[in-house]
Amino acid sequence: MEDDMTQKESPQLGKYELIEEFAKFFDTENGSTVVGIGDDAAVTAPMEENVVSSTKVFLENVHFDLTYVPLCHLGYKVVTIAISDLLGMNAIPTQLLVNVCVSNRFDLKAVSELLDGIRAGCENAHVDVVGLDLGTSRKDLVITITALGECEPARLLTRQGAKENELICVSGDFAAAYTGLLLLEREKKVFLADPGVQPDFEGKDYLLRRQLKPEPRLDIVEALRREDILPTTMTLVSDGIAAAAMQICKASQVGCDLFEEKLPMTELTFVTLKDLDIVHTVAALNGGDDYELMFTIRQSDFEKIKKVENVSIIGYIKDKASGYHLVTGDNCLVELQAQGFRQKQ
Amino acid sequence: MEDDMTQKESPQLGKYELIEEFAKFFDTENGSTVVGIGDDAAVTAPMEENVVSSTKVFLENVHFDLTYVPLCHLGYKVVTIAISDLLGMNAIPTQLLVNVCVSNRFDLKAVSELLDGIRAGCENAHVDVVGLDLGTSRKDLVITITALGECEPARLLTRQGAKENELICVSGDFAAAYTGLLLLEREKKVFLADPGVQPDFEGKDYLLRRQLKPEPRLDIVEALRREDILPTTMTLVSDGIAAAAMQICKASQVGCDLFEEKLPMTELTFVTLKDLDIVHTVAALNGGDDYELMFTIRQSDFEKIKKVENVSIIGYIKDKASGYHLVTGDNCLVELQAQGFRQKQ
Repeated sequence: MEDDMTQKESPQLGKYELIEEFAKFFDTENGSTVVGIGDDAAVTAPMEENVVSSTKVFLENVHFDLTYVPLCHLGYKVVTIAISDLLGMNAIPTQLLVNVCVSNRFDLKAVSELLDGIRAGCENAHVDVVGLDLGTSRKDLVITITALGECEPARLLTRQGAKENELICVSGDFAAAYTGLLLLEREKKVFLADPGVQPDFEGKDYLLRRQLKPEPRLDIVEALRREDILPTTMTLVSDGIAAAAMQICKASQVGCDLFEEKLPMTELTFVTLKDLDIVHTVAALNGGDDYELMFTIRQSDFEKIKKVENVSIIGYIKDKASGYHLVTGDNCLVELQAQGFRQKQ
Repeated sequence: MEDDMTQKESPQLGKYELIEEFAKFFDTENGSTVVGIGDDAAVTAPMEENVVSSTKVFLENVHFDLTYVPLCHLGYKVVTIAISDLLGMNAIPTQLLVNVCVSNRFDLKAVSELLDGIRAGCENAHVDVVGLDLGTSRKDLVITITALGECEPARLLTRQGAKENELICVSGDFAAAYTGLLLLEREKKVFLADPGVQPDFEGKDYLLRRQLKPEPRLDIVEALRREDILPTTMTLVSDGIAAAAMQICKASQVGCDLFEEKLPMTELTFVTLKDLDIVHTVAALNGGDDYELMFTIRQSDFEKIKKVENVSIIGYIKDKASGYHLVTGDNCLVELQAQGFRQKQ
């Protein structure tokens, strides 16, 4: 199973020499990094007992569209997504392994831009790139990111363990990234119909940034440690609030009530969704790409959690028989439905 | 970045339920596995100080051809390749993370066959599958495998540290997998020209097995521990003996002589290559897909290494100025050239 991405692009450099060149992009800063790019495998010496790992695959025209995604932002985003999975376990990301497969549509400059974005994402999160492999694809760009992190066993949080009456919290605000995607898709259609028209994104910077260059919520994981709050469960919100809440409830064998009026959303998101004729609650519940954290805490941590910025309490845990519901503004109970998570009725 | 592989294939099951179903395929047997399939990330608690990790990406029609590769063998092979990278560091593989992206060309049965092969590969190597993600591709099958393993720091082997006069050893025999590939490609052409013709592989089982279902050399890593041999360097041979030897020499800043008559090859490989009009030494030096180990040992370990089965001494380390050479059967010195590793002249 051999391939050599360099056959067409760079007659001077072989694959291994190219990896050696690109390896110079990446400094390492973590004491736990032992062997980085360039050997058979990466070697780390974690300080904590638990190693947390996750691999994400990103395929062009499935997971991203280069029509409107700059390669450096894409690099930053795939790092955010990969390390966010670890944050969803309350772990601290430490290292990253990167695989990139390109066709001859991509030159070395394009690969450099992508790796630049990956480097920026890693620097921002103090994560070392310890693995780099380059390969050939038939046509589309394929990016794979493996994130490694660590956690004290006592602070490790799965989706299991939420109990009745506990509070359901989320970081940040929702549906901004989804709304940003709707704007980008709308302007793409306009552009395809008439390439002379300039895209209209005035005042929408925040929505575009949330879609194109999302930030990992390392600040939340760190703040919970600082304020000495140990949630009972935690998960990443990547496919909307509903799916995340139901994953915690299913794993913990409990139910939940979420409150429509508590779902955090910026005014800009709200107004833009209204202009786009989208029900804002549906967007918050089922929109994707937020990469915020959801966690449950004991009622006794209520005063402490108020000290953590950018966290909202959006509901509470009920018994299993109660099921999963949204309490609407006019006090109706609506059953939650999670996208990509069709329920057996 | 959402996708849902199940929209077309399985109207009854959502993505998360499908992962839950497939998770039942995989038992865990390692004490170091803490959280397996189904949460945001995998959690392990390595017994040794050093964690070794590697991610491999396999793209249909770049890295494998489903015309002649059965899905269950493919599953087994990708496990072998991924864990072989860790063996190349003298580490013991312990866990695996699996990502599979399919288009609607693949039904659930096909995915099951692939995962069955992955399971068989993991069982064989006593490795736990702790991560499983399923996604959508546009057309081609995309498989990503991340292997996690561990190693005592004192036994960890990089490519650095080989010294003059040390012996260069390899496990197994070479060019069988490459020869198997040539046979498969030949019969594919025959089949495409006339689909009525049955493929002719009589007596070639070993060559096909080496190509389609290679075994990881965990036995060698274990035997070296048993015989108390600590090599000075180690690497995986995946792109031929020449590339592996040159990688060790470059990292260690030394040169080497390899002996043509010492390169291990089965009679079957030799005869078949002759029939195919291929120079057998070139196939051993530059053929791919062997997944054997190369390592260097001190002269003082010569007696000990003879007790390890399936290991051949093929040359020795020289000083850097001597360069990298093959000593041919008629005692000529030929400069080594590594495929995919073009040298600056």
